[in-house]
Amino acid sequence: MTDYEQGQAVRMLHYLGPEGTFTHQAALGAASSLSALAEGNIELKAEPDAISILNAVQERGDWGVIAWENNIEGYVVPNLDALIDAADVAAFARVGVDVSFDVFVRPGEAIDDCTTITAHPHGLAQCRRFAADHGLKAVPAASNGAGCRDLKPGQVALGPSICGELYGLTRVATAVEDYPGAHTDFLVLAPRGDMPALLERLRERTDEFESIVTLIPLSTGPGVLANLLDVLRDAGLNMTSFISRPIKGRGGTYSFIATMDAAPWQDRFRSALTEVAEHGDWVKTLAVYPRQERPNPPVYAWSLPNGGVRLDPDAIAENDANATPAGGWQNEATTRKELLW
Amino acid sequence: MTDYEQGQAVRMLHYLGPEGTFTHQAALGAASSLSALAEGNIELKAEPDAISILNAVQERGDWGVIAWENNIEGYVVPNLDALIDAADVAAFARVGVDVSFDVFVRPGEAIDDCTTITAHPHGLAQCRRFAADHGLKAVPAASNGAGCRDLKPGQVALGPSICGELYGLTRVATAVEDYPGAHTDFLVLAPRGDMPALLERLRERTDEFESIVTLIPLSTGPGVLANLLDVLRDAGLNMTSFISRPIKGRGGTYSFIATMDAAPWQDRFRSALTEVAEHGDWVKTLAVYPRQERPNPPVYAWSLPNGGVRLDPDAIAENDANATPAGGWQNEATTRKELLW
Repeated sequence: MTDYEQGQAVRMLHYLGPEGTFTHQAALGAASSLSALAEGNIELKAEPDAISILNAVQERGDWGVIAWENNIEGYVVPNLDALIDAADVAAFARVGVDVSFDVFVRPGEAIDDCTTITAHPHGLAQCRRFAADHGLKAVPAASNGAGCRDLKPGQVALGPSICGELYGLTRVATAVEDYPGAHTDFLVLAPRGDMPALLERLRERTDEFESIVTLIPLSTGPGVLANLLDVLRDAGLNMTSFISRPIKGRGGTYSFIATMDAAPWQDRFRSALTEVAEHGDWVKTLAVYPRQERPNPPVYAWSLPNGGVRLDPDAIAENDANATPAGGWQNEATTRKELLW
Repeated sequence: MTDYEQGQAVRMLHYLGPEGTFTHQAALGAASSLSALAEGNIELKAEPDAISILNAVQERGDWGVIAWENNIEGYVVPNLDALIDAADVAAFARVGVDVSFDVFVRPGEAIDDCTTITAHPHGLAQCRRFAADHGLKAVPAASNGAGCRDLKPGQVALGPSICGELYGLTRVATAVEDYPGAHTDFLVLAPRGDMPALLERLRERTDEFESIVTLIPLSTGPGVLANLLDVLRDAGLNMTSFISRPIKGRGGTYSFIATMDAAPWQDRFRSALTEVAEHGDWVKTLAVYPRQERPNPPVYAWSLPNGGVRLDPDAIAENDANATPAGGWQNEATTRKELLW
């Protein structure tokens, strides 16, 4: 773990390769924001899959970074499953990356001389307008990094901004995705035994923490989840995300993954999770990290999806027999129909 | 909507193209299992994206099929969001497809003469062992269907089984994926106004239905979700899947998507959803369909993930001060540490 030539410790940070992907960009961001915690230089290493990253953390005590959640695609479920099942890995930081595509050509070339455009099929699908505007024919690549690395004469590549420096390419446009605003959050992983010391250092920076917890009720049937959540509510724990996942190889049984505004050193967190565990349900804390700023506004009718129903509770209180729907969306008859057909 | 030459009605079923993808295979399966409900021939039409499919359903009264959930990757979240936001679309059937790759060559060729293998990068990643065993170099394609359609001499293609017939290729191996068992569920969509008649026909086949419902609490903070689920529990509704999704463009607000063993014509379903709607929360029924067979076993310790804690409630009852953990996984001190660090 020590770089003897330099006389400095080296902290390895493993990420899903190849180089030049959004995951690589997230790893560089994590290395930068967490350098003070590393007690030495952070060195990045590309791995072929998430399991290799978790193994490096568990077996060699290194750090890892895995994609966790995308605001368009939702959770990266295979990574979620792998972290739930990992014996000795937890996350202490969460870093975000904007999924934004820059356009590159080989040095000395101009985009007007190019005829094809290359990227991972997802990248090509997200930048259709740019390709159409420039009359470029799509050529799929195994990854955005590979497309940039293997860029041919007369070809344009789409990729994260780091690809420019990484492969010595010329950037000719930035942020050419059809729909801007996509971003992916990543978790930074360490061995569970290192968590207390890491979190102590992080608590010097902030008081606001978020935790991700997995819960498996040891029974099934109606009310199992409601009973579990009653415990969290009664402890005053605010959840910001909640999903169920089938347990692999055990059809009909589920784990629940909750993200909460709380940390293990807070009484309400300790008492709630202890109560769940003492009830006989299975509990595991997957992550504790400083939380990012986030708004918490009320929900206005204009931000609701199309269709659906909502009955105004005030109107109901006044005249229960003739409840009027909120926002004038529909009358009572329509409401019942939308809800129940 | 009528094919005058044949004197028969034609029911259009829209799916995400191109031809020769797993989605195409799901559409063929849906057309076969739902032909009795179509009141005429079902004709498939490939669309460029999910929005085009939903528009065809809403504007022309056609049917559509969209990918919903994969047992490895989880929900297809963009389709989930699109269905939540669609004004006049609901699902009346759920069909599954095994994500299994067959291997094809051009007619007259043999695999031993081939040097490259083509598929969507996901397909290539799922069949690495086969490619390595045959010394085949990976060539990414825009889709599995496109890889089969454009198959070059000396090249092998991976794809769903329908690609053989579709493109006149020779099948040289079946089910070559590294990890078998992946499958994707799809929903079959119709205009909401057609649901009562479709469900009436389906109720002639079975009594067992599942429903997918979206709920948006009109307040935020601790307990919002627990209060909502109390209503479902008290009505005796059994959930088989539950997730939260941020509402687009409204950071900090969430919708909840629940899959339940219930149907709108059952009292417990009607009363629970009416109570939620009358509380002022937003409710929308996304899908009602005959449910597939599924097991509902108890959870045994041996099927739990690695790590995590569980305290034996019986042992606790006997001697609360010296609770012994279940399954001999760890002692009390370890347990507290796993849970809280």
